[in-house]
Amino acid sequence: MNEASLLDRVRIVLTRTSHPGNIGGAARAMKTMGLSRLVLVSPHVFPSEIATARASGANDVLENAQIVGSLEEALSGTVFSAAMTARRRELSLPMQWSREAVGTVTRYAAQGDVALVFGNESSGMTNEELALCHLPVMIPANAEYSSLNLAAAVQILCYEMRMACLVRPEAPDGAGVSAEFGEVEGFYGHLEQAMIESGFHDPANPRKLMPRLRRLFGRVRLEKEEVGILRGILSALQRKVD
Amino acid sequence: MNEASLLDRVRIVLTRTSHPGNIGGAARAMKTMGLSRLVLVSPHVFPSEIATARASGANDVLENAQIVGSLEEALSGTVFSAAMTARRRELSLPMQWSREAVGTVTRYAAQGDVALVFGNESSGMTNEELALCHLPVMIPANAEYSSLNLAAAVQILCYEMRMACLVRPEAPDGAGVSAEFGEVEGFYGHLEQAMIESGFHDPANPRKLMPRLRRLFGRVRLEKEEVGILRGILSALQRKVD
Repeated sequence: MNEASLLDRVRIVLTRTSHPGNIGGAARAMKTMGLSRLVLVSPHVFPSEIATARASGANDVLENAQIVGSLEEALSGTVFSAAMTARRRELSLPMQWSREAVGTVTRYAAQGDVALVFGNESSGMTNEELALCHLPVMIPANAEYSSLNLAAAVQILCYEMRMACLVRPEAPDGAGVSAEFGEVEGFYGHLEQAMIESGFHDPANPRKLMPRLRRLFGRVRLEKEEVGILRGILSALQRKVD
Repeated sequence: MNEASLLDRVRIVLTRTSHPGNIGGAARAMKTMGLSRLVLVSPHVFPSEIATARASGANDVLENAQIVGSLEEALSGTVFSAAMTARRRELSLPMQWSREAVGTVTRYAAQGDVALVFGNESSGMTNEELALCHLPVMIPANAEYSSLNLAAAVQILCYEMRMACLVRPEAPDGAGVSAEFGEVEGFYGHLEQAMIESGFHDPANPRKLMPRLRRLFGRVRLEKEEVGILRGILSALQRKVD
């Protein structure tokens, strides 16, 4: 797999972007680094002449952008996703700095589609959005002024992706085939349902149970076969409960 | 010397910038990475509300920006300068990619002030401007679309500077004290004068002699003592010519 085809597997996902200029700036940043797959989750204003002006020749990236209504849709079919965050959060997965994170993302790109996810300009990503991703990523910014422009953050990550892809990536740890987003989400849904049926989990009083479980399974990066095994166990247990 | 004081030695020099928005974007990019010293060479429009709006909280960087009339002034007192360029040029010094270049710049920052120089948005740097700097630097962009926004290029280099400064830099090769900009320029002036007096160099038919000599001496990064020796030799030879 060569550099270009690895970069073709990277989706840049912008969630709930407020300013269309930043979408254009992100498209330009992507194209300068050889990335082309832009996915917009519920952008406030798009398409827009402001976005097109800021894209400055990267119009093809804007024109081919996929617009979806949820982060789940944006991540459909991916085997790995990393989410930018400006701060450490309670119950989040272990964080990586941008350079290290891009190495991880590149290794998964050898297996299938991957995503770099960027939140809203002011509010960033919600905890729910973050929980859908495998890896929280921080750019090592000035602690006294960490307010990176959204397009500038996209530029840094795309630059790091290009740098990482110039070196042929190693395979991810272990030899198994990574489960894709939908398979893992199917497992979480199955697990939650089984916990509710068994009386262990009360959605009215959730005690952060699902975030804790997502954190646990998110860390191991499940393989396809493992998802099959876990769901087999759940199904077996559910029959016992009946 | 700690990380912060190294970053305090880095000047970001923007030459003949056309769009004030890019000056504001550059100030914001600098501050997110902990850099503060902005030098503007003959900006087309500055100060400007557009610059202030794009700086988005990095107003202190804009307010403290130094405005000068020439790149020579901007580089005064520096011991090392690196210039961004989008293409390889005839007779230029050996080029480095951005990541490698920032390592070099960081090592010189342990000795004194250093500069990262960015040309005009459309025309880049002139060959004359480039000849005043020690190191041409390229950002490894997509060959089919290398049009980085100016503020985005500043963001990448400032990010790389911050990453480089997180690791304590080694001293530059050798133990000598680097000559500063004015000392080296003084030597070039002296050399040119001596060549003219001797009849070797005809300014009306320059045969790219000075660019070739700048390329030669630029590569070795002269030390203070060496400049003294070279000028001593020139003075001695000039007395012979008389």
